[in-house]
Amino acid sequence: MTEPDLPARRGDGIDQIDTPALVLDADAFEANLQRMAQATTRLGIRLRPHAKAHKCPEIARRQIALGAIGICCQKVSEAEVFVNAGVEDVLVTNQIVGARKIWRLVQLARRARVGVLADEAGNVLALGAEALLQETDLDVYIEIEVGMGRCGVAPGAPAVALACAIAAQPRLRLAGLHCYQGAAQHLRSAAERSAAIAQAGQLADESRRALEAAGFSIPVITGAGTGTFPLERDSGIYNELQPGSYVFMDGDYARNQAANWDIGLAQSLYVLSSVMSRPNASRAVVDAGLKALSVDSGVPTVTGCRGAEYVRASDEHGVLQLAPGTALAAGARVWLVPGHCDPTANLYDWLVVLRGNVVEDIWPIAARGMLR
Amino acid sequence: MTEPDLPARRGDGIDQIDTPALVLDADAFEANLQRMAQATTRLGIRLRPHAKAHKCPEIARRQIALGAIGICCQKVSEAEVFVNAGVEDVLVTNQIVGARKIWRLVQLARRARVGVLADEAGNVLALGAEALLQETDLDVYIEIEVGMGRCGVAPGAPAVALACAIAAQPRLRLAGLHCYQGAAQHLRSAAERSAAIAQAGQLADESRRALEAAGFSIPVITGAGTGTFPLERDSGIYNELQPGSYVFMDGDYARNQAANWDIGLAQSLYVLSSVMSRPNASRAVVDAGLKALSVDSGVPTVTGCRGAEYVRASDEHGVLQLAPGTALAAGARVWLVPGHCDPTANLYDWLVVLRGNVVEDIWPIAARGMLR
Repeated sequence: MTEPDLPARRGDGIDQIDTPALVLDADAFEANLQRMAQATTRLGIRLRPHAKAHKCPEIARRQIALGAIGICCQKVSEAEVFVNAGVEDVLVTNQIVGARKIWRLVQLARRARVGVLADEAGNVLALGAEALLQETDLDVYIEIEVGMGRCGVAPGAPAVALACAIAAQPRLRLAGLHCYQGAAQHLRSAAERSAAIAQAGQLADESRRALEAAGFSIPVITGAGTGTFPLERDSGIYNELQPGSYVFMDGDYARNQAANWDIGLAQSLYVLSSVMSRPNASRAVVDAGLKALSVDSGVPTVTGCRGAEYVRASDEHGVLQLAPGTALAAGARVWLVPGHCDPTANLYDWLVVLRGNVVEDIWPIAARGMLR
Repeated sequence: MTEPDLPARRGDGIDQIDTPALVLDADAFEANLQRMAQATTRLGIRLRPHAKAHKCPEIARRQIALGAIGICCQKVSEAEVFVNAGVEDVLVTNQIVGARKIWRLVQLARRARVGVLADEAGNVLALGAEALLQETDLDVYIEIEVGMGRCGVAPGAPAVALACAIAAQPRLRLAGLHCYQGAAQHLRSAAERSAAIAQAGQLADESRRALEAAGFSIPVITGAGTGTFPLERDSGIYNELQPGSYVFMDGDYARNQAANWDIGLAQSLYVLSSVMSRPNASRAVVDAGLKALSVDSGVPTVTGCRGAEYVRASDEHGVLQLAPGTALAAGARVWLVPGHCDPTANLYDWLVVLRGNVVEDIWPIAARGMLR
């Protein structure tokens, strides 16, 4: 087919949206953008939202219009989509390994301000050689392991050794420290999240002091996500924040215990599904299963329909268990809140933007599937 | 970009494949095709492989060349891709509800033999009206609930009532019964799988007899999947089989206890990943996480690398736990067997076909994301 197969057209009502569809509540989305701006950029805090959550240039543009200094991406191919869409400052919050990917990353750095993480001297050497070859400057951030047990050098002396490796490369610029404690986002109690970020901040600060003692300047300490960013913001240590999911929110974030530092983010992302079968009084089956929803953080939550619970997903089916008397005939629309917004958005080519009950726009999720 | 961003080119070696990439072992894949043909079509059994697993017309073509009578799909948009690619006989093994989808389904029936499931009289009425309007014949299969607790009418009398509704529609043809017990595929013990399919067969047979007693002819009883198809084949009740995953296999099927009726299917599908960080002796991090692998049936299994275990997936990272002395430097390739092949294949636009150590071809996963 030459024309894209859109799930809806502008002006459509909810009943005209073809399902399953990824739907954005425009009012809730815009309120989230505003609340984040109030909590960060309007206080003079650098906000660099993570675009891995939405993969949608239309959203990145709105984030930047409200004061974000640029965006984060996780992959080079993803970053290319956003640079092609006009974003001028992208931090790839990952180690980029392998000649082909490094070549593409440095190509991109010729067209925009591009940063990348490093946690190993060999990788720094490869980045530096390619930047030299392409006569292009590249920002490098040292990733510090601040408690999430994933990538990163240990705090303190290993970070200093890596800074020396970066300094030896004429086209690399030590831009700062990447101190992301992503696991803290999903700790249920506010006290646990506070403790984890306090610990991360301490390790970040220890690293900064060691680097400064060795003569390095550390202009930026970047990190944080939707579940904890007010803690990093108020730490006195971080000066750049990377929340991504805040534009959408999801079932997993909803299960976090509320904290006094929450800024009142609202659910804006839904999968709109339809009942395709109603085999008996206690069961309905909807057309959104594992290919329409990521269940890594649990099955979706049904919203706006009392008595229905999504209990089981297979590839293309979702089984709802119904309380006695629940209506939901075949064809009925069922709104689902995904358990995890990022991998769910990555399943769709289009985001249906709904204002009230009317489709206002359809945005391409242009970086969908950009996993290299 | 105008040119597609391919993960590899023909003739590339493994080290030139950009990761993460979905890779098909061509020899294992072809052996699976042959084994299935020997076990079905060459015995005169109708094989209608499920294309929801691979979403790839190149694979469907090879299945049909080896004797498959056509394919199954789960969604109308998916079926369109295969009809556009030249497949002439498609059964959509789902209820198709809603005016827009039914219109598209019947449009498709003007270009190919198309079947669909029904489990409700109201839906039959809508299908019949649209087929009449478009002056097109449509095959309808009654879905019987044979034990998986999803869609379908109860066996026996309710099936007869639905057959009457179908018979009342001049453009609908009662083509058979759909008696799929998908849950049985994943029961771990061979005895449990046998018992579940024996039960399903009994309910299918009971329904057929009730329908024949009411004067209906039931030419086809269709169902079965990779985990149980020899049981349905040998039941004396089913006469059409729908396995899909057999072309690929996955970690979940590998966890099934072997049975004497297994035909020796081999793992042919892999996610090829690269180590992007090697923070310490016991941990490596690869570039394939939740957006590169579906974890609904467990995290992937590492293959060909002793001492490495994939223990945790985040959006774009996979954490490997390493036994003492495991090499795996940054850049090393790590082969992963997905826990569940269907939703994993749906994350990729391209399938890299590897013959030995050389890329033989790159096939588009043309129905990727066709979820409506």
